[in-house]
Amino acid sequence: MLPDQEDDHLKECCGVVGVYGDAEAAEKIYLGLYALQHRGQESAGIAATDGRDIRMHKGLGLVWSVFSDHTIMPRLTGHAAIGHNRYSTRGGSTLVNAQPLLIRCKSGQIAAAHNGNMVNAPDLRRSMEQSGSIFQTTSDSEIVLHLIARSDKADIVSQVMDALSQMVGAYCFVFLTPDKLIAARDPHGFRPLCLGRLGDAYIVASESCAFDIVGAQYLRSIAPGEVVEIDAQGIRSHQLPSAHVKSACIFEFIYFSRPDSRIFDEKVDKIRRRLGKQLATESPAEADIVIAIPDSANTAALGYAQASGKRFEIGLIRNHYVGRTFIAPHQKTRKQDVKVKFNPVSGVLEDRRVVVVDDSIVRGNTLKALVRLIRAGGAKEVHVRISSPPVKFPCFYGIDISSRGELIGAAKTTSEIRDFIEADSLAYLSVDGMLNTVKEGCRYCTACFTGKYPTVVPGDYNKYHFACCGALDDV
Amino acid sequence: MLPDQEDDHLKECCGVVGVYGDAEAAEKIYLGLYALQHRGQESAGIAATDGRDIRMHKGLGLVWSVFSDHTIMPRLTGHAAIGHNRYSTRGGSTLVNAQPLLIRCKSGQIAAAHNGNMVNAPDLRRSMEQSGSIFQTTSDSEIVLHLIARSDKADIVSQVMDALSQMVGAYCFVFLTPDKLIAARDPHGFRPLCLGRLGDAYIVASESCAFDIVGAQYLRSIAPGEVVEIDAQGIRSHQLPSAHVKSACIFEFIYFSRPDSRIFDEKVDKIRRRLGKQLATESPAEADIVIAIPDSANTAALGYAQASGKRFEIGLIRNHYVGRTFIAPHQKTRKQDVKVKFNPVSGVLEDRRVVVVDDSIVRGNTLKALVRLIRAGGAKEVHVRISSPPVKFPCFYGIDISSRGELIGAAKTTSEIRDFIEADSLAYLSVDGMLNTVKEGCRYCTACFTGKYPTVVPGDYNKYHFACCGALDDV
Amino acid sequence: MLPDQEDDHLKECCGVVGVYGDAEAAEKIYLGLYALQHRGQESAGIAATDGRDIRMHKGLGLVWSVFSDHTIMPRLTGHAAIGHNRYSTRGGSTLVNAQPLLIRCKSGQIAAAHNGNMVNAPDLRRSMEQSGSIFQTTSDSEIVLHLIARSDKADIVSQVMDALSQMVGAYCFVFLTPDKLIAARDPHGFRPLCLGRLGDAYIVASESCAFDIVGAQYLRSIAPGEVVEIDAQGIRSHQLPSAHVKSACIFEFIYFSRPDSRIFDEKVDKIRRRLGKQLATESPAEADIVIAIPDSANTAALGYAQASGKRFEIGLIRNHYVGRTFIAPHQKTRKQDVKVKFNPVSGVLEDRRVVVVDDSIVRGNTLKALVRLIRAGGAKEVHVRISSPPVKFPCFYGIDISSRGELIGAAKTTSEIRDFIEADSLAYLSVDGMLNTVKEGCRYCTACFTGKYPTVVPGDYNKYHFACCGALDDV
Amino acid sequence: MLPDQEDDHLKECCGVVGVYGDAEAAEKIYLGLYALQHRGQESAGIAATDGRDIRMHKGLGLVWSVFSDHTIMPRLTGHAAIGHNRYSTRGGSTLVNAQPLLIRCKSGQIAAAHNGNMVNAPDLRRSMEQSGSIFQTTSDSEIVLHLIARSDKADIVSQVMDALSQMVGAYCFVFLTPDKLIAARDPHGFRPLCLGRLGDAYIVASESCAFDIVGAQYLRSIAPGEVVEIDAQGIRSHQLPSAHVKSACIFEFIYFSRPDSRIFDEKVDKIRRRLGKQLATESPAEADIVIAIPDSANTAALGYAQASGKRFEIGLIRNHYVGRTFIAPHQKTRKQDVKVKFNPVSGVLEDRRVVVVDDSIVRGNTLKALVRLIRAGGAKEVHVRISSPPVKFPCFYGIDISSRGELIGAAKTTSEIRDFIEADSLAYLSVDGMLNTVKEGCRYCTACFTGKYPTVVPGDYNKYHFACCGALDDV
Repeated sequence: MLPDQEDDHLKECCGVVGVYGDAEAAEKIYLGLYALQHRGQESAGIAATDGRDIRMHKGLGLVWSVFSDHTIMPRLTGHAAIGHNRYSTRGGSTLVNAQPLLIRCKSGQIAAAHNGNMVNAPDLRRSMEQSGSIFQTTSDSEIVLHLIARSDKADIVSQVMDALSQMVGAYCFVFLTPDKLIAARDPHGFRPLCLGRLGDAYIVASESCAFDIVGAQYLRSIAPGEVVEIDAQGIRSHQLPSAHVKSACIFEFIYFSRPDSRIFDEKVDKIRRRLGKQLATESPAEADIVIAIPDSANTAALGYAQASGKRFEIGLIRNHYVGRTFIAPHQKTRKQDVKVKFNPVSGVLEDRRVVVVDDSIVRGNTLKALVRLIRAGGAKEVHVRISSPPVKFPCFYGIDISSRGELIGAAKTTSEIRDFIEADSLAYLSVDGMLNTVKEGCRYCTACFTGKYPTVVPGDYNKYHFACCGALDDV
Repeated sequence: MLPDQEDDHLKECCGVVGVYGDAEAAEKIYLGLYALQHRGQESAGIAATDGRDIRMHKGLGLVWSVFSDHTIMPRLTGHAAIGHNRYSTRGGSTLVNAQPLLIRCKSGQIAAAHNGNMVNAPDLRRSMEQSGSIFQTTSDSEIVLHLIARSDKADIVSQVMDALSQMVGAYCFVFLTPDKLIAARDPHGFRPLCLGRLGDAYIVASESCAFDIVGAQYLRSIAPGEVVEIDAQGIRSHQLPSAHVKSACIFEFIYFSRPDSRIFDEKVDKIRRRLGKQLATESPAEADIVIAIPDSANTAALGYAQASGKRFEIGLIRNHYVGRTFIAPHQKTRKQDVKVKFNPVSGVLEDRRVVVVDDSIVRGNTLKALVRLIRAGGAKEVHVRISSPPVKFPCFYGIDISSRGELIGAAKTTSEIRDFIEADSLAYLSVDGMLNTVKEGCRYCTACFTGKYPTVVPGDYNKYHFACCGALDDV
Repeated sequence: MLPDQEDDHLKECCGVVGVYGDAEAAEKIYLGLYALQHRGQESAGIAATDGRDIRMHKGLGLVWSVFSDHTIMPRLTGHAAIGHNRYSTRGGSTLVNAQPLLIRCKSGQIAAAHNGNMVNAPDLRRSMEQSGSIFQTTSDSEIVLHLIARSDKADIVSQVMDALSQMVGAYCFVFLTPDKLIAARDPHGFRPLCLGRLGDAYIVASESCAFDIVGAQYLRSIAPGEVVEIDAQGIRSHQLPSAHVKSACIFEFIYFSRPDSRIFDEKVDKIRRRLGKQLATESPAEADIVIAIPDSANTAALGYAQASGKRFEIGLIRNHYVGRTFIAPHQKTRKQDVKVKFNPVSGVLEDRRVVVVDDSIVRGNTLKALVRLIRAGGAKEVHVRISSPPVKFPCFYGIDISSRGELIGAAKTTSEIRDFIEADSLAYLSVDGMLNTVKEGCRYCTACFTGKYPTVVPGDYNKYHFACCGALDDV
Repeated sequence: MLPDQEDDHLKECCGVVGVYGDAEAAEKIYLGLYALQHRGQESAGIAATDGRDIRMHKGLGLVWSVFSDHTIMPRLTGHAAIGHNRYSTRGGSTLVNAQPLLIRCKSGQIAAAHNGNMVNAPDLRRSMEQSGSIFQTTSDSEIVLHLIARSDKADIVSQVMDALSQMVGAYCFVFLTPDKLIAARDPHGFRPLCLGRLGDAYIVASESCAFDIVGAQYLRSIAPGEVVEIDAQGIRSHQLPSAHVKSACIFEFIYFSRPDSRIFDEKVDKIRRRLGKQLATESPAEADIVIAIPDSANTAALGYAQASGKRFEIGLIRNHYVGRTFIAPHQKTRKQDVKVKFNPVSGVLEDRRVVVVDDSIVRGNTLKALVRLIRAGGAKEVHVRISSPPVKFPCFYGIDISSRGELIGAAKTTSEIRDFIEADSLAYLSVDGMLNTVKEGCRYCTACFTGKYPTVVPGDYNKYHFACCGALDDV
């Protein structure tokens, strides 16, 4: 649930929140971003409007840090606001791509923030550059803002829909004008976006945990292709042309979203538990106890334990005090040292045959170190169970996978991986088993497991690096 | 396990580490302090020696933050070092009481850091002031350093023992001179202090989790009244006069220490689980599932679930991204808002009768808010079980309890507390049940539950506020 | 010479530097910006290229502070770089308008920085917005970058010239592409821009003091309308269409530039001294000594003293330790308190009749307080002499004058101003006298004194606020 | 006047301020410290009392920076306060020696801050260590606080006098208790300390410029050996036993103090001007103009110009924007580069024979670089005149001179120094000439010029390094 830079996890692409109609809109956004911190820790930003101007603050770091100066929040007054968390890329952090973006065009001021990745962004960007546009960021939001500004439609909602109908890929957008909040989800519905109610106000967010923290009520998921317009006249729904295959990202259930969130109108916790149960059914193990790699695999491990009738135990303690800029004194040697973050509970592990549940494997190095740690804690046998299928293909829809080269699932067989991580046994969940856990499994994207992409993708996708919420880096 | 400022938990009194004989001693201390961060988050400090000088750095904040400037660690060279984490008092933070203290006296430079609270510190301080001493801090370490400097013994170890034999109360000390590391535990043995081995080096620490992070091997607990001297000649053990009742702090098992630590030569995890099992035996509940207040009550809740045959579930998600200086925009309203830190998992709680296990209750406000949150998550019934007896009396040995006035256990009956926290039922562990979980239960201090203090204490103890690792504030 | 936020001085519009052909180009820019710090203290930025990419860093604050993190400069590698200092506006500081701007367009990456103000920027901006452009800043540089990107000329220099020929007003630009440095001065030649040589490298800067600090040699002023292109092939000069009246800003001599600089191919010190001499001739005073308001009026006061045969003295000491964010504890009362910055030297002033030379008066409040301070220091009589004519009209060419309303010279007669500042006498330099001090006086703009604007200006100019290096704020 | 780390100037030993009877005492101290910033830039601190407690804040950096957090000043409430600026030592900065020191002893809380250096501090420290005292700093203030605490006198003023009468050397002290301000000057009167009046309140400060900034009135110099006690009963004067030779530090006039200050009941500006006049009389030069090394030599240069009938000019411009932590990118090469701080005004220097007045020479490197710079600016001849005699001996009374080894005046003859700095001629002021400029010249200490020390001094003084306001470093 709580990814960070050193985890061997796929990296998600940001979280968004929007509020309209609350006297302290920016404060609600602040708390919502705080609840969505797991979706992005590199930068945070809020744009707010009092009906005349839009004011914005953004910065590098965690939400509480970016807004810790006591002079910032009082300037973000007004009844409507949007916010964004950006995740931490492998490259150096930079403020230039922090969101929201705030621009002025013929329709006045517009702020925009999004989660996702648009497949045709590089082409659109190139084409707009050829026709004389300039780009100050590599964010896809800038492309969409250009398209909005160039649209000859009469009103801002039509302009937004005009712009979005030219985009192919995964996105959830929140737009703010001085008198309107607009939220949009791509026709495939890759990324989650929820609608909630907070007194007289409306709130939209990537996950419903952002509603809980402000006491808002969950209404529903915003539909694939739906554009929601909220202003003084209330709420209205529009639909983008969408003869598209629904393709919600199933990795949101496996790992990205918080278990206490509701997304795609499902409770994450329920699905995640089912993944664990299904895994136990498919791949039982001769073992005494079941433990999780905390905290992300806790729920799946509980499911595994329940279905297998084995005892769930806490076999690893995770240190949560790691600072964002934590640097061990001699960084070279410490960087991969899982001992800084995890410690085995030998009282639990000693002389036990242990099932270790994790949600996924990217490169495998961390898991290998954890298996060693668990053995050092006294475990007799270590049986690794993964609550998702092997990740073998890059994602073009907002997950940061540099290339197939770094995916151990693409390079090795399961038994080779078992040897690499030095486990006594290793099993992944099957694709079919995974899809059994969700209603209408056909509505989900499984491209990273199967290579079946629901949209056209760049021809030689092995060579691209998709920066999050941005264009292809090397195109 | 991971206390912080807003928790309704008793506050522990710091952690200490010392290393002798390692070429990168200060780095080991740094990692050790990082592992002991749960014992103190207000300030951190390291003193290191290269055999000639002692150099020190300390500051307010978490360990990684205090030492984040890249110029600091390279200055702390040498083969021996000590370190200290100080916990966060309710009053404002101040650097003046950060430890270690580094002084120069007739024996040369000495640095000292300690965990605990000495009962006769105010008297000693007053008496030394009368005889012309000055005090620059309110730390008990300064008193001991004065006593060392005034001692007419021939060598530093004798001076230390001379000084400590005048102190009454709870303490674990680490001292550093340019050529020696000295570690000492009070004759009652209130606070834990462990000895470990790291290659040719020795390491001492409040808990063994500080050994694991550097790859050191646990040797044993330093005995009550033992003074360990480590230098180029190796390790030697001395004993303070100690016709004292052994009185290890049982709250270290209940809450303070990490479950993956070994203290008092026991595995914390084992005892904590037994507390939960005993609680289940004493106070079963008609319920469907067992959940913990994460993360501190996880292990006890597992024990309760196991003994009661009920399913352990994760019913509350805790947000770990809270920054140390986290301030919600409108702090007045947010301060107590547990929603910022916890969120219920409704998929788990809905329509369930829930046993909630927590380790202790201080004021009860947080627990009351959590019970409401759990009900809001859908629970039909909420049965609270506490894995320790009611805390009714102040501690004079290093736990920060301002006065009986703030202890709900001192002011209300269990049924009144149940009403206050709005639970369907409430039960505490019995004192006898608690003592059954530890070998030789008579070796433990139970004063905060029973009022039976193993030392003389100030007459009117209701009026004193004991600042951590320091003197009485109002004497 | 050294304006700051609390001075009663007109505020200049930034400084620019560019270097091509030096292995440590960014370091030269850094030092050049440091020498030009008086032209802008709000923000600083450097863009550098190694021939492939352009990398940039900018931030709020003084140059040394913006670049103090030791990781920044090592990233700005390469043989060519540009830099910019932005001055401090009255409104809140914001990073959004900091320069250089770095964009990508069909010609690749371009960074731009400028000093000045373009009169037709609002019209161009509006017109571009209508045709679908978006603006992320209010900087005129963004307009020019849009024009460059839209130009259908074949090469970058032609595109730049195409863009600039559409701009009306005052500007000096430095552009950086991965293989070229381009410097341009508007056809009126309002703002200074100098060309220098540093070994094999070329350097351009607003003032020659930026050459001295890096040991570069002054070559010449870049001519009005000249566009200088510097790359691996050497240096080439182009000319913008320029049937324009030459209109160098004479206030650069009066106040903005450093006395040790050469601008417009003149030594500032020489002209500034002549202003003082001319003032003494026009408006002698019965007095004993001549003092300056330090440091900006020092040179003019020396000239006055010399021409009048009176002794120059240092009658006011200025405290240079004021931090950029200096806030006296009770800011409301201290803000205008000149005592924080100036102190009279009573040994000099006591019982003397004093001529006080200042360079200009904007609102008059500071001067009034200084006159009181000088009397409090013991002066018998205070005769104020101003080394420029009364400022009566707003500037549209890069000086920050909000409106005529704040100009005491527009609202009051000289004798009314004398009464307001409580001086025994007051005299300004005449416009003709001022023009006598420069060669070819007709080449200079005197609009702020005379209202004779060398370009078309907005109709109702009293209502506009011209933000520095940016568009009209309220259009 | 404004020393900083890179100047080739002797370094002064701190500034002190104290206020009693003002409702915003700490704010007055803040402003006073700001005015005294030239006496110390390493650290700043304020202790204030509301009659019950003393609260303190201190930190590394300039005054405005140390107190910039908006929560600090509001905590320093009360009617009485003291403050301290500490100068920047060559070694690393450290908070441990920042002043004031705040202690508790049998008389309650006492804060102390001082300027100066006590010759017998090492002996006292050693002797107190032998009798069991501990030292946490190397500040002489700590020694005096120990002596106060050990004194058996009945009241705090008697204890202070008891303590001070054991100290030999140079000091000005301010002490604060919850109900009293005590100010003391050593019997030799080495360092300046002035008394002023601010409404009903009293103020003491190292220099009177601290009075001007708060609008206080200068009353008189505190006499050598005088101890001033200020409390609710008013002001009372006590006298230390003082059969001592009066020995005011004449370097305060030459360089340390601000020209607008009054010290030793003399106006600094007057004496400094006389030094320049006397220098002109003793050592005229065939030259066209007189310039100063700004800003410290401005006043002496004006005196020289006046007495010699030559024109005073501003031939060097000094950049005041240097930040405290200014580090040029490639520090190794820039460190000594005077071009970063000074720039010649070629319009003034070209083809001129120039007299350059400076106040003193320590190592000579900076002056050598400046002579080159002046020649590079076009000067035909450079005649250096120094407004003090050659510094040949270390100071034991608060000036930071490491050893004779670094004093060019101790190692070379005047003609050798002239050659070293590459001047056409060089002359120093004579000792007698210097003493002629002050009333009762015999009251001044000339030890650094003559080696005639007014107190006993350590035998082999060449080997000691006297840290400022602290003990001998290597004893």
